[in-house]
Amino acid sequence: MKVGFIGLGHMGSAIAANLLKAGYDVTVYNRTRAKAEALASQGAKVASTPGEAATGDAVFTMLADDTAVASVVFDDGGILASMNPKAVHISLSTISTALSKRLVEAHANTGQRYVAAPVLGRPDAAAAAKLFIVAAGAADAVKAVTPLFDVIGQRTFVVSEQADAANVVKLSCNFLIATVIESLGETMALTSKAGIDKHHFLDILTSTLFGAPIYKTYGNLIADEKFKPAGFAAPLGLKDVRLALAAGEELRVPLPIASLLRDRFLTLLANGGDDLDWSAVGSLAAKDAGVA
Amino acid sequence: MKVGFIGLGHMGSAIAANLLKAGYDVTVYNRTRAKAEALASQGAKVASTPGEAATGDAVFTMLADDTAVASVVFDDGGILASMNPKAVHISLSTISTALSKRLVEAHANTGQRYVAAPVLGRPDAAAAAKLFIVAAGAADAVKAVTPLFDVIGQRTFVVSEQADAANVVKLSCNFLIATVIESLGETMALTSKAGIDKHHFLDILTSTLFGAPIYKTYGNLIADEKFKPAGFAAPLGLKDVRLALAAGEELRVPLPIASLLRDRFLTLLANGGDDLDWSAVGSLAAKDAGVA
Amino acid sequence: MKVGFIGLGHMGSAIAANLLKAGYDVTVYNRTRAKAEALASQGAKVASTPGEAATGDAVFTMLADDTAVASVVFDDGGILASMNPKAVHISLSTISTALSKRLVEAHANTGQRYVAAPVLGRPDAAAAAKLFIVAAGAADAVKAVTPLFDVIGQRTFVVSEQADAANVVKLSCNFLIATVIESLGETMALTSKAGIDKHHFLDILTSTLFGAPIYKTYGNLIADEKFKPAGFAAPLGLKDVRLALAAGEELRVPLPIASLLRDRFLTLLANGGDDLDWSAVGSLAAKDAGVA
Amino acid sequence: MKVGFIGLGHMGSAIAANLLKAGYDVTVYNRTRAKAEALASQGAKVASTPGEAATGDAVFTMLADDTAVASVVFDDGGILASMNPKAVHISLSTISTALSKRLVEAHANTGQRYVAAPVLGRPDAAAAAKLFIVAAGAADAVKAVTPLFDVIGQRTFVVSEQADAANVVKLSCNFLIATVIESLGETMALTSKAGIDKHHFLDILTSTLFGAPIYKTYGNLIADEKFKPAGFAAPLGLKDVRLALAAGEELRVPLPIASLLRDRFLTLLANGGDDLDWSAVGSLAAKDAGVA
Repeated sequence: MKVGFIGLGHMGSAIAANLLKAGYDVTVYNRTRAKAEALASQGAKVASTPGEAATGDAVFTMLADDTAVASVVFDDGGILASMNPKAVHISLSTISTALSKRLVEAHANTGQRYVAAPVLGRPDAAAAAKLFIVAAGAADAVKAVTPLFDVIGQRTFVVSEQADAANVVKLSCNFLIATVIESLGETMALTSKAGIDKHHFLDILTSTLFGAPIYKTYGNLIADEKFKPAGFAAPLGLKDVRLALAAGEELRVPLPIASLLRDRFLTLLANGGDDLDWSAVGSLAAKDAGVA
Repeated sequence: MKVGFIGLGHMGSAIAANLLKAGYDVTVYNRTRAKAEALASQGAKVASTPGEAATGDAVFTMLADDTAVASVVFDDGGILASMNPKAVHISLSTISTALSKRLVEAHANTGQRYVAAPVLGRPDAAAAAKLFIVAAGAADAVKAVTPLFDVIGQRTFVVSEQADAANVVKLSCNFLIATVIESLGETMALTSKAGIDKHHFLDILTSTLFGAPIYKTYGNLIADEKFKPAGFAAPLGLKDVRLALAAGEELRVPLPIASLLRDRFLTLLANGGDDLDWSAVGSLAAKDAGVA
Repeated sequence: MKVGFIGLGHMGSAIAANLLKAGYDVTVYNRTRAKAEALASQGAKVASTPGEAATGDAVFTMLADDTAVASVVFDDGGILASMNPKAVHISLSTISTALSKRLVEAHANTGQRYVAAPVLGRPDAAAAAKLFIVAAGAADAVKAVTPLFDVIGQRTFVVSEQADAANVVKLSCNFLIATVIESLGETMALTSKAGIDKHHFLDILTSTLFGAPIYKTYGNLIADEKFKPAGFAAPLGLKDVRLALAAGEELRVPLPIASLLRDRFLTLLANGGDDLDWSAVGSLAAKDAGVA
Repeated sequence: MKVGFIGLGHMGSAIAANLLKAGYDVTVYNRTRAKAEALASQGAKVASTPGEAATGDAVFTMLADDTAVASVVFDDGGILASMNPKAVHISLSTISTALSKRLVEAHANTGQRYVAAPVLGRPDAAAAAKLFIVAAGAADAVKAVTPLFDVIGQRTFVVSEQADAANVVKLSCNFLIATVIESLGETMALTSKAGIDKHHFLDILTSTLFGAPIYKTYGNLIADEKFKPAGFAAPLGLKDVRLALAAGEELRVPLPIASLLRDRFLTLLANGGDDLDWSAVGSLAAKDAGVA
């Protein structure tokens, strides 16, 4: 099976490497070519345009946002013009439901197929092939690329035949993580102002009711105020909350906590937070409380 | 060691039974005497007033709210008038920081001691002696009653010498649970309107990033809309969020998610929610979205 | 008619002076006696205790908060013990509905009468006898004191026979003013960041759709960042929003804007706002936007 | 001076009629041609495409939203292709700042000019030539069309040489009106549940501190629950709040009340509010309070 891979950031490079390890014939493309070259030593072919990477049976895209994905698909030299009939575009990126719908239609019009497959997990999970994949799309298309998912992740959840449903799930997950960040920020501001050490409070939470890794990971970042370097940058956090709100608006679902989070991210970014990890949102409650 | 136990609801009865099993000489009091009699067969002595139950080395109170606790302490026949010098009042209830401070002072004035020791866990955990205890108070007082904690819980977290700090921690925990409820309600409203089965969505969450039992327990209640019988009634949820906000006001810590939750609980109660479990707050987002 | 007046701040002194001008026999009391002496030259008798000021046909209280009002009523030397049967306690203060209800009951038990009569207007309006009075209470009691209202205000609105209804109206008015402050703060942050002069923006508002004096007054304070000296101090603003929320909780009415305002006031107070005018809440949006 | 007018709804028809009355040579275009014909009897020429209406010195657009405006400008037969150099496009519509910026650039590229001039006022004000106009754009362009503004409105506020600043002001005004609606809804829910007649409460407000017509107009609509026919439909209210939030996001200004309003509008629309006036948002607080 011949596959393409477009977008070689921390996540994309790790995923593409796993496809290579599994023996797939992988052609990679990245805007900054150096990152593509880095995979050549592992057997990847390097394409000069997105379209060149998209002439096989399937092509992955793993990019930062809607604009980047739309560009590699629709621009001159993009994948839409070069993909074969029946070939599958697998979109791993966290994008809007609106773009996901547009991609469904565009690929259908050209006889190609599209699967939305956003992933849960950070770069270390990607490297260990331990990602979770939330997939949606036409059953035949999903089936066709399932072997690829098995190589890059530990489990695939197929949620719907309607591709954008996968994006809704992914956006909901990120919204929930941001909620954990904010709620830890608020309770840590409260308990620390009451004289309790932040790590002690966090230890109580994670030893009792809130044992999920997400609480430990983000709780420690907030307690230590360790927001650099950014594992997931604040502007991306804002983007995801905004996309969750947009999905809610399209479906007419008010999301009051997401609204509150959007304002928090804006506050963070308006006050120098562009380079910080999105967990820095968890420091704003303390700032409002006059203790940071 | 001779101990008293006041307040024999689901939680209190289970805890008192464990004290009896451990061999303590326990005198119990409950406003509705029948519940006290039920423990007599296990060896408890039954008191006719709170004060009668408070003549030993320590006395526990496990009651619904500030009013109930203040009443058994300060009213005629209350424990303040009958406790011995050095005896310890152990308050297990989820009460306000204001009342906790008042109790510190009142017991100090009479030469008695006071330990705030709210617990984490539901009746089944209480019965299994698997509670978590968040304790605060003067070091000597906490030390004196630690053997009792070992009998009723699996672990004790001593957070401060200032008693009300334990109440702040407990209120923060309940605020965090309510946040989980609301955020699950919002994301389930969104994903279900996008065509995804609620249990499938919940399975994704709990299999990946949100593995804590709290997500599973409350997620299932919300997905099944199983809000009766109430494990923890909505008015108690409102009370705890209000007390968290009050602690925040006293310490000048704004808590925007808690503010939002307070409004949610009021909406629930204003629309017939008095007898529902507090997880019913998780149904309001769907209602706002026109799907419930 | 012989009347008492308790509480001689800016508002109280001005109101009491108008009663004297109208020829009433007025006995005044103030915790800091100097303010009472100042009225003696205008004909007032000076009492040494609240109770001494309450032996006539009616007694006004005009105090900062629930605690102050409860103290002059219920403490030793308070008015409850010294008022004559049928005498009317007129409470001008902005207090909680809970205290208002308690006062109804206490005065009824002693054969006295109680009218809640919070006022709208600032000290200059009080001095000019241009206050608006929102009155509620038993019809006979309101009727008995209406001539007094005519002397101190320009118009009286009788809203209910249930006294605390007047407090709800007053708290709602202050909640609405705080909403105007916050919404001006948000839109000024937005338009000024878009390059528009704050006064120009305000001029557009007040020349077109928002002609009420409240927009002009508070808009100028926000545009000029003129928050000292405080005409109405931020802690009082917090108190009134809290009391509106408390009334809402009692009646089970969620008030989301009030919740948001409460957090804003806490942020202000946690960051040095104790001495500022409550309009300083209107500066927080700009701060969050990184421009103040 | 030869002018075009595109978009003949209630507002547009009234404005175009005033231009005709003032003696201008007006060519009109409307998607539904009948509305254009109706103005022919008053002397208007009727165009078959937007472009045909745009061959004079200036062309107005008065349309529902971004999509409609972008279509008449950029589509085949649109105004961009047919406007003369130096001709001025006057955009009266309430559109996004993003589109306003795009129009500045597009018209500049073709040597044409663009003035953003959203208006304040409803159809009756438009008919009476009593609109307020908030204008922004290059000084020469604004100057060139000022005589036209004088014919259709009572006053023009020139806020900036940057066109989109006018859109920010207009969006802020609508956001403020929506805030008045919501805050009246909340306080009416509170006071009516306290037993006070809604009109009585409103009378107190408008007779005292809140004398602006906006309070009277919207307060009566809410008190009477008279949400049909829609003077300004709820979906347009949502659109404007969304655009205010988008402007805030672009400028990094968190707008918490606007966030709350967005959720309210979504709740309204998700529950059958599409055909209602936007003041119906003022009924949601009562619904949450269980009284509607």
